[in-house]
Amino acid sequence: MSDAKFHLYYWPGLPGRGEFVRLVLEEAGADWVDVGLLPESQGGGARAMMEALGQGAVPAYAPPVLKVGDLEIAQAPNICSYLGERFGLVPPDEAARLHARQFQLTVADVVAEAHDTHHPIAVMKTYEEQKEPAKAHAEVFRTQRIPKYLGYFERVLKANTRGGGRYLIGSDFSYPELGLFQIVEGLLYAFPNAMRRIASQVPGVMALRERIAERPRIAAYKSSKRAQPFNPKGIFRHYAELDEPNAMK
Amino acid sequence: MSDAKFHLYYWPGLPGRGEFVRLVLEEAGADWVDVGLLPESQGGGARAMMEALGQGAVPAYAPPVLKVGDLEIAQAPNICSYLGERFGLVPPDEAARLHARQFQLTVADVVAEAHDTHHPIAVMKTYEEQKEPAKAHAEVFRTQRIPKYLGYFERVLKANTRGGGRYLIGSDFSYPELGLFQIVEGLLYAFPNAMRRIASQVPGVMALRERIAERPRIAAYKSSKRAQPFNPKGIFRHYAELDEPNAMK
Repeated sequence: MSDAKFHLYYWPGLPGRGEFVRLVLEEAGADWVDVGLLPESQGGGARAMMEALGQGAVPAYAPPVLKVGDLEIAQAPNICSYLGERFGLVPPDEAARLHARQFQLTVADVVAEAHDTHHPIAVMKTYEEQKEPAKAHAEVFRTQRIPKYLGYFERVLKANTRGGGRYLIGSDFSYPELGLFQIVEGLLYAFPNAMRRIASQVPGVMALRERIAERPRIAAYKSSKRAQPFNPKGIFRHYAELDEPNAMK
Repeated sequence: MSDAKFHLYYWPGLPGRGEFVRLVLEEAGADWVDVGLLPESQGGGARAMMEALGQGAVPAYAPPVLKVGDLEIAQAPNICSYLGERFGLVPPDEAARLHARQFQLTVADVVAEAHDTHHPIAVMKTYEEQKEPAKAHAEVFRTQRIPKYLGYFERVLKANTRGGGRYLIGSDFSYPELGLFQIVEGLLYAFPNAMRRIASQVPGVMALRERIAERPRIAAYKSSKRAQPFNPKGIFRHYAELDEPNAMK
């Protein structure tokens, strides 16, 4: 066990739901360690991660799990909100905190739906065993759900007049913007052709994504070895047959 | 607009995600009104509900929405936690609050998966248009996912030694137990045969369900006209072909 203050337990090898927590820890400049990425000799790896799930006084259903001293909590949106509030990455008033949690939950809904595009039937089976329903599900996701979700966040940016169209909450950055950034990154990886079409409909969301990518701590993290790229084992996956044809060709 | 203190905006005609909020409001003895159930002449019905979604300073992606004075918040787990904390339906310490939110989010995950059993491909299409993938998805849900989810809550009850196997948190009732109650109710309605088999594996969860049903305010609400029964327009739906054969016959 390292002596870092925050221990994140999540699958090594993919961004996944853990990445939403990692981004908040990085933006906060927290003293943290990614247990799944430690060598097994230091208590790391997938095994330590799975063992952590069942051992606490309050079991977690699934990773990510965050340990802070004696406290052990699960559910990515819950962890993000805990950290965001603790590190002042959201205004301290009740309405701002509740709206930040609301946005983080809608981000989580997008993640769940993005996962189901390649696993619409059975989470424990492979993509190859559910390719046909995946194709049908992905089409609905690309044509209806992505525009609806990102269009929603575009409306939130516009409706927040104090933020001049740049912020989800108030007149400054807040932690759910990291989550919105990460789902846009994931959608760009998984559905590049669909996103080329959709991006022009949500200019505020795409501009927010650029601003988050340029935040010094996020940029440093994303270019570090600690950041694990999207890949076909993750939640956001690129299968050409689930995307639409490239209209630019 | 009624002069009640809490206004819930949710689809009339089904328990749905709104029911998780309704149960917390009822258990709290809150002064609340279900706007969707008011006549249109009093600003009620589905139309008032949909209009509420877009009009606030902070738009909601989907119902349920709760209005309290100037505050307007969305996402059922977020609303339940707000109310549960406000009305003292969870201990005031940070760990208890975070674990309650964690449980409420896992309840919400069950709700989303239960919905997808009859709509695995496209939320906007009918069940009849996706019956075959629904059958495959429901089988996985019945045989793997329900036992895993309810087995998780059974472990939580056992691990909470202070609660003697009776409580999710500490040594008394807390609001996520209302959510766990409601998913068990929904699963019993949707998959009666599967649940007959699974119930014996999760005696703690089934006993908790009985205790919640007997809480005076919950019993009064559930036997009132305000409570809307499960039905084939809702999230938890009973289609005989999605359940398993009755092993008792």
